[in-house]
Amino acid sequence: MSLLRKNIAEMAGYVPGFQPEDEASWLKLNTNENPYPPSPKVVEAILAEVGAGGGNLRKYPDAASRLARRAAADLYGFDPSWVILANGSDELLNNLIRAFAGEGEEVGYVHPSYSYYATLAEIQGARIRTFGLTEDFRIADFPERYEGKIFFLTTPNAPLGFAFPLAYIEEIAGRCAGALVVDEAYVDFAEVNALELVKRYENVIVTRTFSKSYSLAGMRIGLAIARPQVISALDKIRDHYHLDRLAQAAAGAALADQAYLALTVGRIRATRDRFSAELRNIGYQVIPSSANFVFASPPDRNGRRVYDALFSRKILVRHFSDPLLAHGLRISIGTDEEMEQTLGALREIG
Amino acid sequence: MSLLRKNIAEMAGYVPGFQPEDEASWLKLNTNENPYPPSPKVVEAILAEVGAGGGNLRKYPDAASRLARRAAADLYGFDPSWVILANGSDELLNNLIRAFAGEGEEVGYVHPSYSYYATLAEIQGARIRTFGLTEDFRIADFPERYEGKIFFLTTPNAPLGFAFPLAYIEEIAGRCAGALVVDEAYVDFAEVNALELVKRYENVIVTRTFSKSYSLAGMRIGLAIARPQVISALDKIRDHYHLDRLAQAAAGAALADQAYLALTVGRIRATRDRFSAELRNIGYQVIPSSANFVFASPPDRNGRRVYDALFSRKILVRHFSDPLLAHGLRISIGTDEEMEQTLGALREIG
Repeated sequence: MSLLRKNIAEMAGYVPGFQPEDEASWLKLNTNENPYPPSPKVVEAILAEVGAGGGNLRKYPDAASRLARRAAADLYGFDPSWVILANGSDELLNNLIRAFAGEGEEVGYVHPSYSYYATLAEIQGARIRTFGLTEDFRIADFPERYEGKIFFLTTPNAPLGFAFPLAYIEEIAGRCAGALVVDEAYVDFAEVNALELVKRYENVIVTRTFSKSYSLAGMRIGLAIARPQVISALDKIRDHYHLDRLAQAAAGAALADQAYLALTVGRIRATRDRFSAELRNIGYQVIPSSANFVFASPPDRNGRRVYDALFSRKILVRHFSDPLLAHGLRISIGTDEEMEQTLGALREIG
Repeated sequence: MSLLRKNIAEMAGYVPGFQPEDEASWLKLNTNENPYPPSPKVVEAILAEVGAGGGNLRKYPDAASRLARRAAADLYGFDPSWVILANGSDELLNNLIRAFAGEGEEVGYVHPSYSYYATLAEIQGARIRTFGLTEDFRIADFPERYEGKIFFLTTPNAPLGFAFPLAYIEEIAGRCAGALVVDEAYVDFAEVNALELVKRYENVIVTRTFSKSYSLAGMRIGLAIARPQVISALDKIRDHYHLDRLAQAAAGAALADQAYLALTVGRIRATRDRFSAELRNIGYQVIPSSANFVFASPPDRNGRRVYDALFSRKILVRHFSDPLLAHGLRISIGTDEEMEQTLGALREIG
C-alpha cells in the first residue's frame, strides 16, 4: 500500500518539451529558447561571483536576493517590497497556488495556455477549472464574478502567441474575486504589459521569467511584482535559500543591461515578423505573435505531418496532440539563418 | 480582507541565521559553512559549463539532472531510479511533506532539531507533533506505532551534534507507519549513515546536502535516496527545471572528487576534536559531535552572555533563545586558526 497522498500517487506529472541527447546536430525550435547568448555582463558577473578559487561558493547566498530585487524594483518603478525573485517563474506559479488555494479550492486558467498550472494545482490537491477562447481571442464564458481562489492569465498566450489588450486584462482583474496572476513570461517581445495594473488592483500579480528575453533558461530565474502582503506571503512559502549565488549575480547583471535586452529582443521581433510573412506566403495561417515563437498551421491543417517531416530533417518544433492545437505547430524564433533554413524545409515539405 | 489562505497569512515564516552585511570583518561561525573552498574540480566544471560567451546558459538545463543523479547513484551504490537531486535539501524536505502529508495530517519531528520542518508543515496546513529527547539522546515517549504521515529524524542532530546509532534509527523505521526521513545534512562528518536502511525499509528516505561537507552552500544542492516510487513522486512535485546548469555541473564534479571531500572533512573533524577538548579544558560542557559544529555550554550555563561577548569581538556563533538550548552555543568548526582565535576569546570572556 502506498504511503503517498492520493493526489500525488495518481497524478501523471508534467512532461517538458523534448530535449534531444545529441543537441548539437539539431535545429532546436521547440522550447522557445533565445538564439542569442546572454549579455556579456551576465557572464562577467557570474565569473566574478565564482572568483578565482570558488571561495564564495562555500558561503550561503543572500537569503532575500536583495541586490537583484532592488535592481528589478528600480527598473520597473516599484518599491523593493513589491518584488520577489525566484528559481524560475515556475517556482512563483507553484508558490502562488500554495498562497491562495488550499486543498479542494479552485484554480482557474485559460486552455490552451501553460498546462503546468494544472500540474501545480494537482500537487496542491486543488480543483481545476479551465476556460476556452473565443474566435477573437477572448475568454469564453468568463463569469461576471469569478469566485476561484486564483486565476492564471498567460499573456502573451503560449502556445498561440497573441496578447490580450490591457483594457481586457483590467476587466478580468475586476471580475476576479480571488487573485489574478498575469503570467508575462513572453512580455518583453510584446507591445504592452500589465505592470500598471499591479498598482491599481490589489489582486493583480505579474510574473516574469529570465529564460526567454534574457537568454537565461539555463540559470532558472523568475520574478514577480505584487502588493507587499503577497510578496511577504511568497517570502514565507519559498525555501529560505532558494536562489544560488550565481543565479543572483546573473539576475542583477541581466536587469542592468537593458541595452543588450533591447538589441536581442529587437532582432528576434524583426525575425519573427519576416518569418511570419514568409509563412503566409507559402499558405500557412499564422496567428500574429507578441512572443518569441509563432503558432502556424499548414494549408491541410495537419500539424503532425509537418512536425514529422521537420523532425526527419533534424528540425525540432513543438506539436501538441490536443485537438484544439493539433492542426498547427509552435515554432520558436531563432536567428535569421535558422528561420531561413526552416522555411526552406517547409517549402520542400509542402 | 486578505485573499491569502489562513495558514499562510497567519504563519511567521522561518528566519535563517544572521548574515552580517560587512561579512569580511567577522569571524563567522554561525551557519555551519565549511571554511574550505569547494574542490578545484567544481570550479573547473562551473567555468566549463559557462563557456567562453555563456552560450550554454540560453538553453534549458537537463530537467532530470541525469549526469549528477548517475554520479550519486554510482557513488552510493544505488540504481539512479533511487536518487534525486534538488535545489538544496530544503526543497526535498518541502516536497516530501507535500508527497506524504495533506492539510490537517500529521508531520512529526524531534525538538530540538531543524525547526524548518515546522515552517514547511505550516505552509502545507499540516499538523505538527514534536517529541523531546531523553538525557541519553533518545526520542522521549515515541509510540510503539507512530501513525503520523511523515517523521523527520535529523542525524547528526542539529544543533546538538550527536548522532543516533544505526540500530536505533532502524528501530524507529520499524515503528513509523508513515515515511521516515533521515535528514543526514551533516553525515559526512559522522561515523555511520543510514543508506543501508533505504534498501531494507520501504518507508525510509535519506536526504543530504552539498552545503556543508562539499563547501557548496552558495550553490544550493541537495539529494535524496529512496525507493523509486518515492523518487517518482518527488519528480512529479518538483518544478520541472528546478536545478540550473551550473548547479548540476557543480554537483557532478563535487561527487566525483571524493579525495578532496575526505581531505577537507578529515581536517574539520580533527579541528573539531581538538577544539572540543580545549573547550572542556576551560570548563565547558561539550556534547560529543558528529557534525561540523559543536554544542557547548559555559560553566555558568549562560549562553547568551558568551554569545554577546563573542559578538562584541566580531565572532559570530549561534545562540537559541529556546529554553532547551539557551544555556549553550552552537559553534561552527572553521580552520585551526579560527578556532584558536575563538578559544582565545572564550578564555578572555571567562
